[in-house]
This record gives sequence, structure tokens and C-alpha cells, in this order.
Amino acid sequence: MIGAILFRHCVGQLRLRSTASARGCSISIRCSSSPSSATSIDGKAVAKTIRDEITVDVSRMKESIGVVPGLAVILVGDRKDSATYVRNKKKACDSVGIKSLEVRLAEDCSEEQVLKSISCFNDDPSIHGILVQLPLPSHMDEQNILNAVSIEKDVDGFHPLNIGRLAMRGREPLFVPCTPKGCIELLHRYNVEIKGKRAVVIGRSNIVGMPAALLLQREDATVSIIHSRTKNPEEITREADIIIAAVGQPNMDPNAPRGYRLVGDVCYEEACQIASAITPVPGGVGPMTIAMLLSNTLISAKRIHNFE
Amino acid sequence: MIGAILFRHCVGQLRLRSTASARGCSISIRCSSSPSSATSIDGKAVAKTIRDEITVDVSRMKESIGVVPGLAVILVGDRKDSATYVRNKKKACDSVGIKSLEVRLAEDCSEEQVLKSISCFNDDPSIHGILVQLPLPSHMDEQNILNAVSIEKDVDGFHPLNIGRLAMRGREPLFVPCTPKGCIELLHRYNVEIKGKRAVVIGRSNIVGMPAALLLQREDATVSIIHSRTKNPEEITREADIIIAAVGQPNMDPNAPRGYRLVGDVCYEEACQIASAITPVPGGVGPMTIAMLLSNTLISAKRIHNFE
Repeated sequence: MIGAILFRHCVGQLRLRSTASARGCSISIRCSSSPSSATSIDGKAVAKTIRDEITVDVSRMKESIGVVPGLAVILVGDRKDSATYVRNKKKACDSVGIKSLEVRLAEDCSEEQVLKSISCFNDDPSIHGILVQLPLPSHMDEQNILNAVSIEKDVDGFHPLNIGRLAMRGREPLFVPCTPKGCIELLHRYNVEIKGKRAVVIGRSNIVGMPAALLLQREDATVSIIHSRTKNPEEITREADIIIAAVGQPNMDPNAPRGYRLVGDVCYEEACQIASAITPVPGGVGPMTIAMLLSNTLISAKRIHNFE
Repeated sequence: MIGAILFRHCVGQLRLRSTASARGCSISIRCSSSPSSATSIDGKAVAKTIRDEITVDVSRMKESIGVVPGLAVILVGDRKDSATYVRNKKKACDSVGIKSLEVRLAEDCSEEQVLKSISCFNDDPSIHGILVQLPLPSHMDEQNILNAVSIEKDVDGFHPLNIGRLAMRGREPLFVPCTPKGCIELLHRYNVEIKGKRAVVIGRSNIVGMPAALLLQREDATVSIIHSRTKNPEEITREADIIIAAVGQPNMDPNAPRGYRLVGDVCYEEACQIASAITPVPGGVGPMTIAMLLSNTLISAKRIHNFE
């Protein structure tokens, strides 16, 4: 999951990309003062602060009750981007003291094999979070597989029961999906007021756009969601105070060392000139997404072991 | 549940009411032609057509497999408005051949008694839909009670798992909440195109506003939700092609025969002058809500008995 945040003066001038995948995420925020050069929002630094906080809590938990939070990651197939995401997640777990387990299954394995792995982790008391790296090979039923993850260990927050609770007033989800949670956390840490602000979410994916809209609404923003069927999207974004764009895609680049590059949702150079603050990609929402995964795993371990 | 639909030229001129209850619902639609007097959208007539279709299906089901769809309604306390809604639902069931059962519990009964009734109906194979009339007395935990209704019999569509599926792309809810389902059905029956249109939902209740927004989004509208914290709501509604207002409240009127009157969300006389089409209240979304409850009960019986 990639991402960027930019606090903007006038995003109406930004080109809206027409791709509609959930692989990227950026945020823009309008500033009422006159345009100047963009301040860089340092998602990487904020993510580091959060990881430090998690490290302290993980070690406190281990000392107090002897429990180490555990995350299981299931990776199916050979996608390079997926392998990179999984590697980064494992590294991040190591860095805060969370135990991580990885199961790699072949591209042509059966859905039953994936379900069996999930079932083992559901029953394993040393595992508090289970993550199935998406996308899955096309012969598998993603819905069926994600539904198999125990709601108590759904650290990705993709279970429909979690999404339903996120949508409803007076209900609390067990977990909030990591990328939109990271976006909102960045807004909080930069003291951006959300209440009463007009927010536009670009993209309506189950993973980023839709839950981002629900989160912004929970914080009393006035939310509009624009997508591939929207007429005149620029007209709507022009009026927004906060924009979360979740339609980017990693640029496949055969000349890059890994065969692909990570790019943001909006043209960075273009955005710099009109936004009051901006996060670069990489270094924007991406690191926050992983930090939120660690946070969700810790929250899960604390809840399961009734530790505060 | 009350409601009204109005197809509008310029709803920007309509006063937005500041109440934020879920008891009312109205729809407005912008027409590109020049203003003229409003056409009345006859929710009552459409609801009758739908009830007639349901009657045919219920009798076909009875003849083919000997099953009569059954709805159980649980009413707690003595609210006059709730009693009226329940009476109307019972009458509507009778009119289409759906069996209805009513349980009345005293205002001061315990939450356990309500849960016990729900549990009985969950286990009763002759019951295909269970409805707990809201609001519940304040000493009860609404969330706890609604969660107890079996997801397969949740004809109100209020279970978070249903709401989650409604929010997610590629997922299908078992039931769609009745009032927003009725709004969308009216738009369909009046051949109003939704795809690509700008829709504004006023109010974000779990019962009407939020699911209405999710439904409009599923039909490819560009949706904005405005609520009590929204600044300049008129500015946003002015740009909308379709407006669903779900913030009305029944006017309590001690001089009316039943102690209250049903009124719509927007001033009807005012709206008539600027909308191209409008539903009056009563006679708008209200009858559609009940028709959708019958529809959901029939859908449930068909699904449980695998009847098409």
C-alpha cells in the first residue's frame, strides 16, 4: 500500500488520475492562507514515533504478563510488490518486538490450503493478528478467504462486520483498516481539524476509499466520495478542505532495480506548487500503513489478554 | 417511518431543518428544464403496485410449497407513534397474505424478556422476518437487542454484518434497510437515472441516512452526506441532482386526534414551487417503507425455503 498526504491550497488544479485501484493513497488539505511552497508532511517520521510508542507497550506487556503479540502473514504466489510489502511488514514487526510468522503458498495452491492456514492461525493462541496479503491469485474467492479470518484477529479490518460497525453511529469496529487509519492518524498528529470540514475521498475501494470516507464521517467531516463514474470531479475537489486520494497505482517500471517503482497518486512536483503541505511518496502514508498494522496487532493482543 | 420524495429544480432555496432524527425521509431530484409546478410523486400508488406483486408471489409460494411467509414484530412500551407503525405493518401483512405475529412487552420489562422473545422467533421455522420496533425504552441496550436478531431474519437490515456488506463493493447484503430501499425503488420506478448523478443525503442515521448513501453509491451516484456539523449545507445541496433528506420528525400535536401528526422533512408548500416533482407526506416514502418490509420478508422466506 503506497500513499501520500498533501495539504493543499487549491487541489482543483491537480489532475485527477482516472485509474481506480486501491493501491495508493494520498491526502491533501486546503490552507486558508495565501499559496506558498509546500511543507513536507513527514509520514515516515510520524510512523517512527508511533513505532517507538508500540515498542514501549510491547515490552511492557511482555514484562507484565509474559505475552508477545504475534502476527501471521499469508502470502500466496510470486508477485514482487506483494513480496516487498510482506518483507516490510516482517521488518517492522521485528523492529518493535512483535513476533511475526509468514506462510508462503504457491501461486497454484488450492483455496482449501489457504483456508487451512487461516484456520490454524485462528486457533493458535500465540497469534493475535492474521493478514492475507492481497491480491490473491484469480482462481481464489477473496471474499470467502477474508471471511475465514476470525473477527478477533482481523487486523486488516476487512471483515464486513468490522466495516459495518465502522459505518454505524454508536458502534465500534474491532479494527480499522490500516491505510485509512494511517491517513486519519497523520491528520491528528499534524493537528489538522476534521470536524465540520469538507472532505473529498477519491476512490471507493473496500480497502482504502470507502473506510476512509467512513472514518472522516465519524470525525464529523462532511464527506463526498468521487469515483470513476463521477462527472466533473475537479469541481467537487475544488471545494474540499481535505482530500484523500486512493486511486494511485504503483508504476510498473522494467528499468527499476525491482521491476517496479512506488509512485503517489498525484503528480508530486505539480502538487508541491499549490499545496500548503505535502507528503512525498515513498515516505507518506505507506510507512503509516505499516505502523497501523503493528498498532492493530498490539490492540488485538491487549484485547485478547485483557491488558491495558 | 415517514417520508417524502421531491424532484426539484432548485432545492438550494429550501430551508434545511436542523433536527437530526431518523424518523423522516424525503427525496428531491433536480430537473434540467425550466421550473414549473411540481408533479406529485405518488409513493402510495407505487407501494400499492409493489404490494400487488408481493401478493401474487406469496400465493404462488403457498400453492407450490405450502409455505406462508411470517413476520414477527416486537413492540416494547406504549409510544403512540410506535403502536401506529406496528398496526400499519400488521395491516399491510394481512393485505398481501403474509402471516404476522405481534409481541407486546411492557415499558418496564427487562432486556432479557426482549432477548427471550427474539430467541424464540430465531428458532421458529414459521417466522422468516423479525422486527424490533424502535425506539426501545432507554433502560435497554438497543445494540445488544438488535444483534440478537438472526442475520437470516433481520428484515430491517440493521445488523452490522448487513450494513458492512452494503458498504462493500462485490458484497451483497442479505437485507437492505426498508426506508432507503423504498427511496431507491421509487427512483427506479420513476425511471430516474442515478448513475453519475450528484446525490446529497441529509442526515447520517444508521436507519436511513447512512444506508441511503451506501445504496446511492452502489448505483454509481457521487454521494455527499451532510449533517448537523456541516457548514453551509445549502451550498452543497444546491449542486445536487438527487437529495434524500432523512432528518424530519413527526410533529407532536396535542390537538390532533392521535396526539401527533405526520409531517415531511421539507416544507411541502415551499418545495412545490421549486421542485419539478414531489411526494407529499403522508403518501410518500412512508408507504414504500412498509412495502419494502413486506418485500424483505418475502425475500427471506424464499431464501430460507430455496424458492424462486
